[in-house]
Amino acid sequence: MKRNDTEFAEISPSEFFYRNRDLAGFSNPSRALYSAVRELFENSLDACEIYGKVPDILVRITPLDLDTSIPDPKAYMIKVQDNGPGVDPRYVPKAFGQVFFGSKFQLRQTRGMFGMGGTMAILYGQITTNKPVSITTSIDGVQAFTFDLLIDVQENAPIILRKASHPAEGSTGIMVKLTLEGDYSRAYGKILDYFKQSAMVTPYANITFINPYGHLSIYERVTKVMPVPPKETLLHPYGMDVEAVRRLIKRSNEDSMVRFMSKNFHRVGEKIARKFINYSGFDQDRDPKTLSNDEITKFVRALHRYEDFLQPDASCLSPIGEEILMTGIKKELQPEFIATTVRPPSAYSGFPFIVEVGLAYGSKILPRGLKLFRFANRIPLLYDEANDVASKVLNEEIDWRRYKIPEEAPLAIIVHVCSTKIPYKTVGKEYLADRPELERELKNATREVLRKLSLYLSRKVSIEMDKRRFNIYGKYLPLVAKFSTELSGEKRLPDYKKLLDTKKVQRGIEEYT
Amino acid sequence: MKRNDTEFAEISPSEFFYRNRDLAGFSNPSRALYSAVRELFENSLDACEIYGKVPDILVRITPLDLDTSIPDPKAYMIKVQDNGPGVDPRYVPKAFGQVFFGSKFQLRQTRGMFGMGGTMAILYGQITTNKPVSITTSIDGVQAFTFDLLIDVQENAPIILRKASHPAEGSTGIMVKLTLEGDYSRAYGKILDYFKQSAMVTPYANITFINPYGHLSIYERVTKVMPVPPKETLLHPYGMDVEAVRRLIKRSNEDSMVRFMSKNFHRVGEKIARKFINYSGFDQDRDPKTLSNDEITKFVRALHRYEDFLQPDASCLSPIGEEILMTGIKKELQPEFIATTVRPPSAYSGFPFIVEVGLAYGSKILPRGLKLFRFANRIPLLYDEANDVASKVLNEEIDWRRYKIPEEAPLAIIVHVCSTKIPYKTVGKEYLADRPELERELKNATREVLRKLSLYLSRKVSIEMDKRRFNIYGKYLPLVAKFSTELSGEKRLPDYKKLLDTKKVQRGIEEYT
Repeated sequence: MKRNDTEFAEISPSEFFYRNRDLAGFSNPSRALYSAVRELFENSLDACEIYGKVPDILVRITPLDLDTSIPDPKAYMIKVQDNGPGVDPRYVPKAFGQVFFGSKFQLRQTRGMFGMGGTMAILYGQITTNKPVSITTSIDGVQAFTFDLLIDVQENAPIILRKASHPAEGSTGIMVKLTLEGDYSRAYGKILDYFKQSAMVTPYANITFINPYGHLSIYERVTKVMPVPPKETLLHPYGMDVEAVRRLIKRSNEDSMVRFMSKNFHRVGEKIARKFINYSGFDQDRDPKTLSNDEITKFVRALHRYEDFLQPDASCLSPIGEEILMTGIKKELQPEFIATTVRPPSAYSGFPFIVEVGLAYGSKILPRGLKLFRFANRIPLLYDEANDVASKVLNEEIDWRRYKIPEEAPLAIIVHVCSTKIPYKTVGKEYLADRPELERELKNATREVLRKLSLYLSRKVSIEMDKRRFNIYGKYLPLVAKFSTELSGEKRLPDYKKLLDTKKVQRGIEEYT
Repeated sequence: MKRNDTEFAEISPSEFFYRNRDLAGFSNPSRALYSAVRELFENSLDACEIYGKVPDILVRITPLDLDTSIPDPKAYMIKVQDNGPGVDPRYVPKAFGQVFFGSKFQLRQTRGMFGMGGTMAILYGQITTNKPVSITTSIDGVQAFTFDLLIDVQENAPIILRKASHPAEGSTGIMVKLTLEGDYSRAYGKILDYFKQSAMVTPYANITFINPYGHLSIYERVTKVMPVPPKETLLHPYGMDVEAVRRLIKRSNEDSMVRFMSKNFHRVGEKIARKFINYSGFDQDRDPKTLSNDEITKFVRALHRYEDFLQPDASCLSPIGEEILMTGIKKELQPEFIATTVRPPSAYSGFPFIVEVGLAYGSKILPRGLKLFRFANRIPLLYDEANDVASKVLNEEIDWRRYKIPEEAPLAIIVHVCSTKIPYKTVGKEYLADRPELERELKNATREVLRKLSLYLSRKVSIEMDKRRFNIYGKYLPLVAKFSTELSGEKRLPDYKKLLDTKKVQRGIEEYT
């Protein structure tokens, strides 16, 4: 056996994701173009919403070489510009040029989860086209700064090639221009679906997309009502682990377990804290800093076993809401019938979440049969549908025969999950893990909207039958009246018309359509 | 609008995977127990194979608290011991206590791809039970070292609690003992499947698994023939990007493009290098160090466009091989019929790969209907089957009717993909991306084994018919002989027996079973 000469090496986070870019959704030129666009676009939406600014976002893809005869994959320039709060110039280089440096690391509902999408896009652009990214930012609308950056992959650090300051055109916000090798001919379908579906759940945003051929797609704002911006929140006892507790102890200045808990745990006040401390068998006034490693473990185990903590409250979540969801669906799918439902807040391992489901039935835009639209924290999810918990629910847990929906009728189910932590299975944010709590909520929500649909359908049927009955009736009644009058030798026909009052029917029809 | 007070933060790689452990397959106590076992086990197998040592591996799971009435999830201790080369004590702390430090970062076929599985297991153990991991290693069989480690998650650095040196019991190897909160009652099915399937593709290994109740499962070595250990290889031109080329230039001392390429590119010799340099329009004797950024980009684009590079050669790959695959399937599935095939080497974006497919038909062990076994670099893949490229091929690209396989008959398809880079979609190594090249090879291989099966089936049928025919014949011939003898007034019966020689049939039967 040859001797042990195993080579060990250390790699940087950039290096890791450079080598494994498939993990972040940058597996090929078509996929990368799509991912880059969505990551930058989602950062812009997040920024606007967190600061309660009605979003105005421009996305433009231009081929670097104007000779259109060059085949894909080729170099494209992506430009994304928003009217958000902008990024403080002090942070720009690291925020865009360093993996694992970002603003998405608090416990708060945002589209971004891993805080690396933008950097990955820039990294991919750099390794395929060798061009620096250009970032222009203004946080006061008066002065703007432009940076040209490259990433030192091995060091995971930004390289600033140029930094310039100049007057801003009156508005705050950020503009990112990056060049990458992409394949628009393969990606455009997904990209258009992505914007269309984004518009469906953000009808309060103006989205302008200009494709490489200069073609304009505009998704216009139809409402200024925005969801309440998400708040940051504390970790729920059920979400705690030894590491988390140790950190809280290190940070906190509370000198008693009770005060420690009521200050640092989500929905734990003095009263609950006391109850729990008794249950866990620790001393009320014990200074948390004096806990040994084993005691911390005992404490955490007790946290997970204790059943009387309050469920995480969802005030930190920002669901779309039935109204905005309706508006969006109506606008983008123009269906014959819409039903929506918002489930009460629930939680999985300490993270609050809300499930919203919409249903659209009968529309020229929709394909025949069932179409599923998936959203998570307002992001459309377009890849790996097969593995998503929503597909599992629709395929395995819904008894479709119960709802008597005409086969081949166009039907769309729109599911939205919002949470402080979306259980994505991949950094590329393709699909959600089948956490049982999530599965349950999705199932119930879907059943609710399906019940509403079958109610509508059955009423529709009976109305049509009424109409038909009245038509036949209306055809023969006059004759019956005429003959019977003649037979009886009367001169005047009886007033049979009031018998033909179909208002009731009319009313019925309007009522349900 | 409130002013921009976005908080930015930097997190360490450990911190990132601590927060997003689902990404690495540590989403819950049951999944984590499974992942921890497999990651440690796979590291042991890799170590043994790279050094050509026939593996002897012991895996033991023991509940920390012997009171079996305590319900899952609870603390378990996992012990994994191998007879491999061991890890040099100088590297132990970082190799086990630091994310992104490891021995899996070369271009070589190994089970490990991301070089972080072991560390993740230790991290998960620490945050759930707060116990240090204990690692004992010996690289010479004479002296052994034992480390007790914790991980400083925020710093992504190992904390050495104890380091001791003591005599080794004559053999090299490593032993890891870690404690984590697990759920064996949910995980045991997967864990047993995992070992069973591992045994199927590593019949040259002795695997001993002791479950929490002390029950022993032994998978005994049935052959000492081991696959050729994988070699390290250079990156193929098609796999190059700007970053990779820039690094090669930095490292190399060659002062001409031709020499530079022939030294650093996979399957590029002087001749091909010259041809390509002409094609790309650079000067043969140009010193690569003088290339500008834009020239490097031009160079890389040319690399991807040029069509006359040789396909990556697969000498660096170590497939299972038909013989070992057969042995393994026979041993673990005991089927009525086996077919295997190994496809010629192919490549996707510069990475060589080989697809091997086995088929097992008719076995009491197998369930009715089709069962798919997936392997990548000899790892059984047990999760997220729906999204795997192999499922896609079986469900969408095989015309099953063509093969006339009796419905409900037990049938297993075993697919193995080996490559210097497996296109996993998740760090948890659950399933493979549907790269078109991979899809094509899987489809062809599956068809080959299915053709072999339907040939076997049709022959089997005709043999049965022969047998039946001979039986009837054999029943009446004696009577026919008797009567005809009497009629002809003869005394002696003719020797009709030789007409009943069913050896041909017998031979036929043996031949195809």
